[in-house]
Amino acid sequence: MDVFKQEVIRIKEYLNSARPTAVNLAWALDRLLQRIQRAASVNAAKTDLVHEAIQIQIEDEETCRQIGQNALQLFKSGDRIMTICNAGSIATSRYGTALAPFYLAKKKNLDLHIYACETRPVLQGARLTTWELMQGGVDVTLITDNMAAHTMREKQISAVIVGADRIARNGDTANKIGTLGLAVLAKHFNIPFFVAAPLSTFDVSTRDGSDIPIEERDPLEVKELNGVPIAPPDVQVFNPAFDVTPHHLISGIITEKGIITSNYAEEIDALFAESISQ
Amino acid sequence: MDVFKQEVIRIKEYLNSARPTAVNLAWALDRLLQRIQRAASVNAAKTDLVHEAIQIQIEDEETCRQIGQNALQLFKSGDRIMTICNAGSIATSRYGTALAPFYLAKKKNLDLHIYACETRPVLQGARLTTWELMQGGVDVTLITDNMAAHTMREKQISAVIVGADRIARNGDTANKIGTLGLAVLAKHFNIPFFVAAPLSTFDVSTRDGSDIPIEERDPLEVKELNGVPIAPPDVQVFNPAFDVTPHHLISGIITEKGIITSNYAEEIDALFAESISQ
Repeated sequence: MDVFKQEVIRIKEYLNSARPTAVNLAWALDRLLQRIQRAASVNAAKTDLVHEAIQIQIEDEETCRQIGQNALQLFKSGDRIMTICNAGSIATSRYGTALAPFYLAKKKNLDLHIYACETRPVLQGARLTTWELMQGGVDVTLITDNMAAHTMREKQISAVIVGADRIARNGDTANKIGTLGLAVLAKHFNIPFFVAAPLSTFDVSTRDGSDIPIEERDPLEVKELNGVPIAPPDVQVFNPAFDVTPHHLISGIITEKGIITSNYAEEIDALFAESISQ
Repeated sequence: MDVFKQEVIRIKEYLNSARPTAVNLAWALDRLLQRIQRAASVNAAKTDLVHEAIQIQIEDEETCRQIGQNALQLFKSGDRIMTICNAGSIATSRYGTALAPFYLAKKKNLDLHIYACETRPVLQGARLTTWELMQGGVDVTLITDNMAAHTMREKQISAVIVGADRIARNGDTANKIGTLGLAVLAKHFNIPFFVAAPLSTFDVSTRDGSDIPIEERDPLEVKELNGVPIAPPDVQVFNPAFDVTPHHLISGIITEKGIITSNYAEEIDALFAESISQ
């Protein structure tokens, strides 16, 4: 059993190292490890891991549904909403976070039109978000990331909603690279900018955005696409995978427990005090 | 001769239709047509066309040198400068417009570091700007367009400089899609934002940016890269090729005759009155 536990810890550390910026992977891995502390045998531990994973998935689905429900009150029929990256059913369980209100709107015959940024370099928006929204019958238009400003102005975007990889105690939010730019543009064009994320994405041990490590990834992601060069092979590249949006650019953070719209530090503290006391 | 002239006009209209947003292609084509009004024979007209084209190239090279010279005073050694698209020697003659100061700085051993946005969907920044700056020994780093905000903040960008496809009488500037976004971000991060363009790019018959037509291009440019799908084949796409940056977001327009920094409408009128009187 000790050998098994050591191996689980090794794999946990390995999986965790994949995402230095995000925190809810670490949160889920911690829950799994916690679960097998009580296990009497290796077989029992394996069963426990599977059960805990399924439990996390069930809870996550309910969490996403509640985020979607809370977010939905922010939008009305006819709204044109911009998003970046994939904060939908491929990234989380069933409804996703930032995409959840779109699925719930569809069920209620609320007509929302989504503009999805392609999200370079890995194109999660182009490849995943458009695909999953189209599968769900949601009206979606693809734009490249540098079309966001012109699209906000010309298409009269009603709101921006994005996911989060880590939210600091003061509300500063790390999310896919490009999110900060959308937040600045939204502010300029007077468009509300929302973050949708479960409580497992908050890291109250991180005081503010400056404490969040930003993962830098392989330059090849920028220089090549499907193995085909799209830039000089020896060009210097800066490839940060995330950026941090300061809380003052965020109109609201939508969680499964409600929407935080002001005094982020206080409201987040209150939210976590309440969660812990439950 | 009449048949030849008709054919030249037909080809001129065809070439012109390639760029509804830009104006200095139209300006050059008009100059060519003007030149052959005087021609006595088809052979003479052909020689005239070649001579006028060479003349335009020689003048353009000198214009670009002067733009570069005027722009150079805005930068100092150690500056980190962001640009978008290709406003260099591939797009114009020898030095280019927005890239001209970088070549002149190199000659003067002034150390500038350039951040080039890849410029989706056609990747002029990734494919052309990085390549030509590297050929010229200029220090350049490639980023994707959605990294602009994070890069401005993290790399302490000193200035943004871009080219222009058409400048209206009030200073509103049409340029490659993504330019408006950079201007808004630059304003937010308190970074000066410059447009570099020859007088042939000004269209004083266009009152303001709302009068500039924005070319929309084939959705395939966004959905495919080198013929390989990077999004669902039937996804809706919005693909504007340009955007308009309002003059109040522009710190200065750098021309071959000097830098316009305030009261754009007045200064542009004065500049053109002076040009015409010469």
